Amino acid sequence: MTTSPAIFQSLFSQQTQTHSRDKESRSDMTEATIKIGVLGCADIARKVSRAINLAPNAHIAAVASRSVEKAVAFAKANNYPPDVKIYGSYEALLDYPDIDAVYIPLPTSLHVKWASLAAQKKKHILLEKPASFNVGEFDQILEACEANGIQIMDGTMWMHNPRTQKMKEFLSDKDSFGELKSIQTCFTLSAGEDFLKNDIRVKPDLDGLGALGDVGWYCIRAILWAVDYELPKTVVALRGPVLNEAGVILSCGASLHWEDGKLASFHCSFLSHLTMEFTAVGTVGTLHLNDFVVPVQEKESSFTAGSKCWFNEMVTGWTSTSSQHNVATDLPQEACMVREFARLVGNIKSNGAKPDQTWPSRTRKTQLILDAVKASIDSGFEPIEVVE
Amino acid sequence: MTTSPAIFQSLFSQQTQTHSRDKESRSDMTEATIKIGVLGCADIARKVSRAINLAPNAHIAAVASRSVEKAVAFAKANNYPPDVKIYGSYEALLDYPDIDAVYIPLPTSLHVKWASLAAQKKKHILLEKPASFNVGEFDQILEACEANGIQIMDGTMWMHNPRTQKMKEFLSDKDSFGELKSIQTCFTLSAGEDFLKNDIRVKPDLDGLGALGDVGWYCIRAILWAVDYELPKTVVALRGPVLNEAGVILSCGASLHWEDGKLASFHCSFLSHLTMEFTAVGTVGTLHLNDFVVPVQEKESSFTAGSKCWFNEMVTGWTSTSSQHNVATDLPQEACMVREFARLVGNIKSNGAKPDQTWPSRTRKTQLILDAVKASIDSGFEPIEVVE
Repeated sequence: MTTSPAIFQSLFSQQTQTHSRDKESRSDMTEATIKIGVLGCADIARKVSRAINLAPNAHIAAVASRSVEKAVAFAKANNYPPDVKIYGSYEALLDYPDIDAVYIPLPTSLHVKWASLAAQKKKHILLEKPASFNVGEFDQILEACEANGIQIMDGTMWMHNPRTQKMKEFLSDKDSFGELKSIQTCFTLSAGEDFLKNDIRVKPDLDGLGALGDVGWYCIRAILWAVDYELPKTVVALRGPVLNEAGVILSCGASLHWEDGKLASFHCSFLSHLTMEFTAVGTVGTLHLNDFVVPVQEKESSFTAGSKCWFNEMVTGWTSTSSQHNVATDLPQEACMVREFARLVGNIKSNGAKPDQTWPSRTRKTQLILDAVKASIDSGFEPIEVVE
Repeated sequence: MTTSPAIFQSLFSQQTQTHSRDKESRSDMTEATIKIGVLGCADIARKVSRAINLAPNAHIAAVASRSVEKAVAFAKANNYPPDVKIYGSYEALLDYPDIDAVYIPLPTSLHVKWASLAAQKKKHILLEKPASFNVGEFDQILEACEANGIQIMDGTMWMHNPRTQKMKEFLSDKDSFGELKSIQTCFTLSAGEDFLKNDIRVKPDLDGLGALGDVGWYCIRAILWAVDYELPKTVVALRGPVLNEAGVILSCGASLHWEDGKLASFHCSFLSHLTMEFTAVGTVGTLHLNDFVVPVQEKESSFTAGSKCWFNEMVTGWTSTSSQHNVATDLPQEACMVREFARLVGNIKSNGAKPDQTWPSRTRKTQLILDAVKASIDSGFEPIEVVE
């Protein structure tokens, strides 16, 4: 791979409406605005580019692909600001001094190399999920971040939706929800023939964790989120995972077990209809939602919360049932994610703060559970003890 | 236990409004009306008594308890018709020739004895769930039924709600739902201190299957219902079941696995908030409801069905999502159950039909899975092959 020079593009002169232009006129465009380089032009980078454009404290400063042409086309298609630097190699982008951070949507197999190099080049990192093939790889990235004072956060967008905070308030309410006892969740999608043949998420050398790393990541994160990131003691994969010819997981599930008796189970698949259920049951309350990863609507989303529900006297109906709670958001959840990432980076840059450890710790725990599920599958569904 | 004579009670002269009186004035009160004796005055018998009163083709003809006083009080409290026969022993009721059928709400431990005897006395049987402690016991009951030409049906009420039929139509629709791939369900309730100390459902000598036999029964039945009663190949209990000091299950779960890759998991508990989730995911559709056992409302219930849902182009929302379907019922589901039972009995009585095998076969399969879950728990969570 050769390093191409940065090319200043004036491609955008004809654009009259871009999110970034809207943003530039805002009063919140301050010195703390974080300049982000986009390292790769994956499909998901379109959504995150829009999110960077929308976030009040972030700005797309550069984009790289393995070819300049692809990067130019991508920048144009995604309303990149006119001063964006465009690179035909990832190395070149990382050498560009005028960016604070990079967003890395590359295939998982490339994360260790490029995230580590980004850290060495003093770029903070927003890293697509799954973070790595395994926790050992992620620890290499973490080491590089630590050695260089780098903030890292993974791209689990729904964590940053204001709805998530509202749901957490319910789960934390001892009077309304009580003590968490069990979780059931599934994220499935019907990937289609072309995806199952060609997508990087079914290629062992690219995103070898398949459905577990893609949709399963969200189930595992949601479970950990609900239990305040207390690791389970044991993970057992459910029998009957479906693998493709190359051994990549297309469908699987697992149960997670905590010392105190809490129990969670999840199912994830590329082979079923789009479904995103999450149910957490406490001693006195139940939380449920059916769009936990991508809300049905961008600007308002909902969940149902039931508390102290019970039957009528003859058990022919319920005296009270769950009620729906709607939560509005000023920004799409992925833009909230970018805003949070840029806030942390800004805090390091402007205030000399240390990198936040909360987000990478959550990433690492998610990866630990992924590893355990995979180890359980590989061992013939033996229970795997989770060791931090 | 001594046999008390039948006591005709004129207790009800002061009653001006009873369901049964309403019914007697109806034109559908025909010769085919099935006379049912209620064998025991358990709490659930109140709900089923009301259901018999409501069903157009059934009539409460007798009630028995171990004491006459209890039976009298129960009959009075439950608007029994004035001509009801009241017995101070179960044997006496079974010897009363003028009843066609019995409803048996006795503790599970008494099912073999009393259901077998009822069959021998040529009484058709509506049997509370769980049917038995194990399939061997249930087979003894089935043998008695077969030897005597007796109809048996278990008391799984929700099966008879018109909603269930509507949901089945969705699950059977290859265009809208496709091929069933996975099911997640849970039925939990917070039983409370008194229940956990005193209820028959936590006593090993009465309802020794505990939460598995009570709330777990419904989860297992719902799973079997969704797969058209195709038995799974393997059942594996989830780790971490909670047992009381006497060894009765208070909380457990399992996964069920079919040859063709279908997967189901369930969780049932007496230790968590009232929750009744059921989600079935097919290749192109998803069914969900949160009150599958006891609908929130008696006269109208709902489910959500999603078909070919997908994301918008940027995956920032859904272009289509699940829609809610409401289903009205003229009768509460438990009265629909009695109506169906009475219809089958009437068909035998009036038309010389043979007992229907569909319902007992469903009962037996449910019991087989219960047995497998229990065997898996007892074996330390080994997979159990299900053999019909």
